[in-house]
Amino acid sequence: MIEATGIHLTEADKKNITAADFGLSRIREEGVQILTLFNTNRMAAKILVLLPYQTEPEHWHPPVGEDPGKEEVIRGIWGDLTFYIPGEDNMLEGFIVDGKDSCYTMRHEVVIEPGDQLVLPPGTKHWFQAGKRGAVLYSFSTRVTDLMDQFTDPDVVRETVIG
Amino acid sequence: MIEATGIHLTEADKKNITAADFGLSRIREEGVQILTLFNTNRMAAKILVLLPYQTEPEHWHPPVGEDPGKEEVIRGIWGDLTFYIPGEDNMLEGFIVDGKDSCYTMRHEVVIEPGDQLVLPPGTKHWFQAGKRGAVLYSFSTRVTDLMDQFTDPDVVRETVIG
Repeated sequence: MIEATGIHLTEADKKNITAADFGLSRIREEGVQILTLFNTNRMAAKILVLLPYQTEPEHWHPPVGEDPGKEEVIRGIWGDLTFYIPGEDNMLEGFIVDGKDSCYTMRHEVVIEPGDQLVLPPGTKHWFQAGKRGAVLYSFSTRVTDLMDQFTDPDVVRETVIG
Repeated sequence: MIEATGIHLTEADKKNITAADFGLSRIREEGVQILTLFNTNRMAAKILVLLPYQTEPEHWHPPVGEDPGKEEVIRGIWGDLTFYIPGEDNMLEGFIVDGKDSCYTMRHEVVIEPGDQLVLPPGTKHWFQAGKRGAVLYSFSTRVTDLMDQFTDPDVVRETVIG
């Protein structure tokens, strides 16, 4: 899906692809595929892929030590993508994962077209979801502290990664 | 050139294109075209375009206040691109701008193919140059402090930007 968008991947890139199921063991519904382009002590860039109707669980990036928390900027590359962030409920395109009303509390929908960007300051609760075609997006961020991420769903275990 | 590489630009992106001649008033030889994708207080992403045989002057990112200096990661997108950084002189593809030997002191050449990445820690002297086709590349960085950049060429005036 990434190469279909015209992005040239090196062999090194391809070795940096993982899939996360967040310990929920239902990756087709709740999960994300991650290609890490780089990850230094100060910043990171990833390409995220969602399969059709796949949902990344709601979470936020808390302060870690002297770091105010991860700031993230996403940029749409391809496909059908909606983000959910704080604000009035205007949910139209997306859906709440079956039986998980309490785990997806942000209902302000932002449709992300290719090239659209969204800045997520530290602490911003967010989740996102692909529509019919799936979605490919960039995630740029300050220092990655993913193991410190906080999730609304108490069943999430962040460190589970399927290689 | 950017759109020819398959990157989708929004109208907002297109308004964020500038050209820098570094006060040298010979942009076709020494200069760069810059599309800023985003620029927050903590990080930035830009697409840089070099015309055929155009050269970005040698510079480095010094510490600024409590910031250890801008860390930059570049990633090749398209074209003929060589970077010059500290290390043994192995210069082969590129050339020193006429009469400017003392302004281009780094002679360790790294050929950047599409997808190749290079991490430039703060303080790393670097310059880069396009070959026959020109070049398009990403520059990801921590907080932008470009007005503080230090240049080897004493004639550089950083703030000159041609809109």
